[in-house]
Amino acid sequence: MPATPSPPLRGVWAAALTPFHADLTLDHARLVRHVRRLLDRGCDGVVLFGTTGEAASCSVDERRAALAAVAEAGVSMHRVVVGTGCCAVPDTAVLTADAADAGAAAVLMLPPFYYPAPSEEGVAAAFDAVLQRVGDARLRVLLYHIPQVSGVPFTHALVERLRAAHPKAVAGIKDSTGDRAHTLALRRAFPDLAVFAGTEALLLDVVRARGAGCISATANLTSPLAAEVYARRDEPAADALQARLTARRTALTATPPIATLKALLARRTGEPDWAVVRPPLTPLSAADADAAEARLAAV
Amino acid sequence: MPATPSPPLRGVWAAALTPFHADLTLDHARLVRHVRRLLDRGCDGVVLFGTTGEAASCSVDERRAALAAVAEAGVSMHRVVVGTGCCAVPDTAVLTADAADAGAAAVLMLPPFYYPAPSEEGVAAAFDAVLQRVGDARLRVLLYHIPQVSGVPFTHALVERLRAAHPKAVAGIKDSTGDRAHTLALRRAFPDLAVFAGTEALLLDVVRARGAGCISATANLTSPLAAEVYARRDEPAADALQARLTARRTALTATPPIATLKALLARRTGEPDWAVVRPPLTPLSAADADAAEARLAAV
Repeated sequence: MPATPSPPLRGVWAAALTPFHADLTLDHARLVRHVRRLLDRGCDGVVLFGTTGEAASCSVDERRAALAAVAEAGVSMHRVVVGTGCCAVPDTAVLTADAADAGAAAVLMLPPFYYPAPSEEGVAAAFDAVLQRVGDARLRVLLYHIPQVSGVPFTHALVERLRAAHPKAVAGIKDSTGDRAHTLALRRAFPDLAVFAGTEALLLDVVRARGAGCISATANLTSPLAAEVYARRDEPAADALQARLTARRTALTATPPIATLKALLARRTGEPDWAVVRPPLTPLSAADADAAEARLAAV
Repeated sequence: MPATPSPPLRGVWAAALTPFHADLTLDHARLVRHVRRLLDRGCDGVVLFGTTGEAASCSVDERRAALAAVAEAGVSMHRVVVGTGCCAVPDTAVLTADAADAGAAAVLMLPPFYYPAPSEEGVAAAFDAVLQRVGDARLRVLLYHIPQVSGVPFTHALVERLRAAHPKAVAGIKDSTGDRAHTLALRRAFPDLAVFAGTEALLLDVVRARGAGCISATANLTSPLAAEVYARRDEPAADALQARLTARRTALTATPPIATLKALLARRTGEPDWAVVRPPLTPLSAADADAAEARLAAV
């Protein structure tokens, strides 16, 4: 974690795509370029190895090496959050310690997601075990609530329990449900946590409720507009901008978002390997990519 | 995989529990003792690092070290299957290659289980990528169908596709649905695959239909009786034995099975650390362990 006081966790963050070569190995140079581009194109920060970053499809060693490459390239670690939550406590602990050592702004932590319906006590025990192993007082954690993927929610009771046990470490929550009422309820229940929506469609709603902002997959492409919404959030004009931003998000999520974003990024950058996803994801067909472009152009 | 012809994959296999020390590290010596005990108590073989073995809660390195310890202890690898399916292809490939090198009878492979509802094409691509990386013609794979946990089924179409692509490698399937009709339908659809039920409650049904047998969590405790059912499967007396076996299974699964089995094993062996589970699982309370003992004693 940063040795100097880090800026607050807020604004528009992209859940960065992870670039692969055609042989499915990670492309560190392209990752560094992409992170820099996102930070130049209005993102307050980037999240490496979230769901969008195909984190679960990469080994612990691959994730460590990629983070090291980004850090060594001189990217400001104040603007990087690292996804670290795995099924196995030792894996989560290693990745979390690594992110802390690299000076990342925070980690984004999934609960262990293999066993269905673990008890609140069990998830809290996993969290405790990770934090004990990491043993770094600078650590800041964003809880990653994405039950439609992980199967394991961070209920209000669980958030409260984790905050009580680790008041300094638990810094916020990313709510990837896309459910406005759920995100705003988190904001009301936990006013001292950084509450991020998992979609820029809720950006204005969340920041006007004094939430933190958004951490979004589609911000890989929409960040300039999202940044404008964020910057002008107190102006009446922001609503029309938000409507356009939401329409762009909708256009990008009609087909599987990760493959769609990668296919479009391949076209925009002229780097065809951007279209590569790791199995079990599958690349977008050219026809679907054309359709996504057309939807995007229409809004 | 075995250099000499291996015995067929059939009979009663225990999905072995993984022993931890109180500090949550793996206890290799106790694992070796447990594997030997299972093989002495009627198991045709053991599966290391299935769901029951808390595989997902262990790192790749921990799983490799535990397998090495079992192999180095001189346990016949013909009687060992290794669970190797992870979310990340590189992890599954490393574990699978390791199991092949150790001479394991087969691997038990989960599909990548993080992303919900991956396409059949995507799961097949992951499987292809693993087998290509392993590149070992001796490899035998049991597909691990446990959709209520993994979220990702091996449909008949997917099994057919994988068999067509890898006719030598795909050796069987473990059906952990507990659904008799489903298991028997697999048996009919794929007569040349070793079809295992994931519960000894279906043992007699499956073997009378010339299925392979069972790979079961509760066989950690029920294996002598399960072995008797298997041995006497062609006798009328087998039905009464099966009824008792099923009742024992039922008694052991009224509370969370892994914690229940570990709690009872701690009592039977006088080794209290057997009760240790890794989070997000939680240990059984003494009261629940007493109740499980009582249920077991009543059947």
